[in-house]
Amino acid sequence: MKSIQTELSQLNKNLHKMIAAENPILYSASQQLFNAGGKRIRPTIIFLIAKLLNKHQIISTEQKRLAEITEIIHTASLVHDDIVDNCDKRRGMETVHTLFNNKIAVLAGDFLFAQSSWYLANLNNLDVVKTISKIITDFAEGEVQQSIISFDYHISVDQYIEKSFYKTASLLACSCKATTILNRSNKQIQNNFYLYGKHLGLAFQIIDDILDITGLSKDLGKPSGSDLVNGNLTAPLIFTLNKKSELKKMIDKEFQFKETINEAVNIIKNTNSIQKAKDIAEEHIQLAIHIIKYKYEYTNNKELLLVTYYLLNRVN
Amino acid sequence: MKSIQTELSQLNKNLHKMIAAENPILYSASQQLFNAGGKRIRPTIIFLIAKLLNKHQIISTEQKRLAEITEIIHTASLVHDDIVDNCDKRRGMETVHTLFNNKIAVLAGDFLFAQSSWYLANLNNLDVVKTISKIITDFAEGEVQQSIISFDYHISVDQYIEKSFYKTASLLACSCKATTILNRSNKQIQNNFYLYGKHLGLAFQIIDDILDITGLSKDLGKPSGSDLVNGNLTAPLIFTLNKKSELKKMIDKEFQFKETINEAVNIIKNTNSIQKAKDIAEEHIQLAIHIIKYKYEYTNNKELLLVTYYLLNRVN
Repeated sequence: MKSIQTELSQLNKNLHKMIAAENPILYSASQQLFNAGGKRIRPTIIFLIAKLLNKHQIISTEQKRLAEITEIIHTASLVHDDIVDNCDKRRGMETVHTLFNNKIAVLAGDFLFAQSSWYLANLNNLDVVKTISKIITDFAEGEVQQSIISFDYHISVDQYIEKSFYKTASLLACSCKATTILNRSNKQIQNNFYLYGKHLGLAFQIIDDILDITGLSKDLGKPSGSDLVNGNLTAPLIFTLNKKSELKKMIDKEFQFKETINEAVNIIKNTNSIQKAKDIAEEHIQLAIHIIKYKYEYTNNKELLLVTYYLLNRVN
Repeated sequence: MKSIQTELSQLNKNLHKMIAAENPILYSASQQLFNAGGKRIRPTIIFLIAKLLNKHQIISTEQKRLAEITEIIHTASLVHDDIVDNCDKRRGMETVHTLFNNKIAVLAGDFLFAQSSWYLANLNNLDVVKTISKIITDFAEGEVQQSIISFDYHISVDQYIEKSFYKTASLLACSCKATTILNRSNKQIQNNFYLYGKHLGLAFQIIDDILDITGLSKDLGKPSGSDLVNGNLTAPLIFTLNKKSELKKMIDKEFQFKETINEAVNIIKNTNSIQKAKDIAEEHIQLAIHIIKYKYEYTNNKELLLVTYYLLNRVN
């Protein structure tokens, strides 16, 4: 996104400064994290919404800080997520708990969460504090939910969507809402952008889950089928379950062998489950787009629409 | 403390309600935590300061909520601390990461931290949010510092005090300050009670560290010498190091054998190091007492003084 290139590169610099802890371990853990080069989806969305809402297309200092905070929270959640999922690689790089150990990963995550709370409080806006602190509660709730229903093939599509909301969509929904609060938008606009973020986040998670099945290890930066190994049953698998009961047996045995994972991935690919999952993702993208395109006829909506479509097209 | 018995038992009830998560694992983890029956030192101090500052000796609803929040943060820090220290027992009961597993312990801790942020934001006082969010940053910083200097016998007394501040005293200092903010006390009073909490917290930690050496396993609820096993070098050991160089060898070998721990404990006990550590604790208690007793001539200071002395007397 050319128009926010400067803001994104400033964000990267600031993230390093903000986390530049005095102690070497945290420092190298955080370098590792921020260098791993996420796609900066969340800051991108925040910047574009900020521009959309301001008639001079100006992103305020507070909104920039908000983008940094959400990226820190997101990173903290990844660090703890990797311990929980026992994930060795992320974006093709070794994870903190592999490179250092579980202890350091727990602490590095806590430190990042704590830093984000601190910067958040210093935005001096209680509404934003409340909106963003909800993210961390939701994230923890989602992770715990996931660990309870891991390897449980009775999971319904609704439960899967709920889990995805807590794990992923809540962060985007609340970040979008907070961007509008910092713009002093009215409650209705706040609510609309909350919904935009929610639908976008759900689509994003569903697409991630599809890619875990259809993607190549080198593109994913981690082995395909990783979700299954961890008992994280996602949309493509859930849609396959009624048709292919042999999957249930594999799940009961918790995919003990690598071959079972490949077999399961192939079974899923050979049904229309991937398409069904795509359809749901597309539905959510359409709901998100509807808000930007028609609800208020935002004139500067071009770039935000582009990014929104881009997220869907990752899967095609 | 008879005068705050009602408030303390209400606090216990509220803690259960506040954390009564919808999911069974978090629920049982939190029951486990809150039933383990901490001494509720932090809420006690908050309640007594609140009463001291109010001429009708009334504790406000916000101050009661603050006490609950600090107890949740403290509990969250214990859960993550036990993973980091690989501690199996706490207060004589199995820890969350032993009873469940590391994953659940990471999540339960995150969930508690997140809940505390949420309740904190809903106190609707930005100053309090800032003061309390500092605690979590300090806690994480302290834990990381500790992990860097573990088994490093070059640690100085100053480094030990700094580590203890981050790990323990910051929570008490910030809680005391927040209590005064909620009372709308002026900056000087805020600062005084911050210092009161800081000195009390340092004394508390030093005494805990002495008890780890001198206490009996059954009283501690965990084996004595636990700090040493984890490479957490504390005041009694630091004071012994110059006199007994054989300790350095044991530390270099990271107390591999159980006998070495008992030997180290005995070496420390047979010097004046315990007394030297007690002296420092007493110094901090005196500084804390000075603030309540002479600085403002608080008339209702009797109970707070009693608790302050009680903390020191645990060790005698």
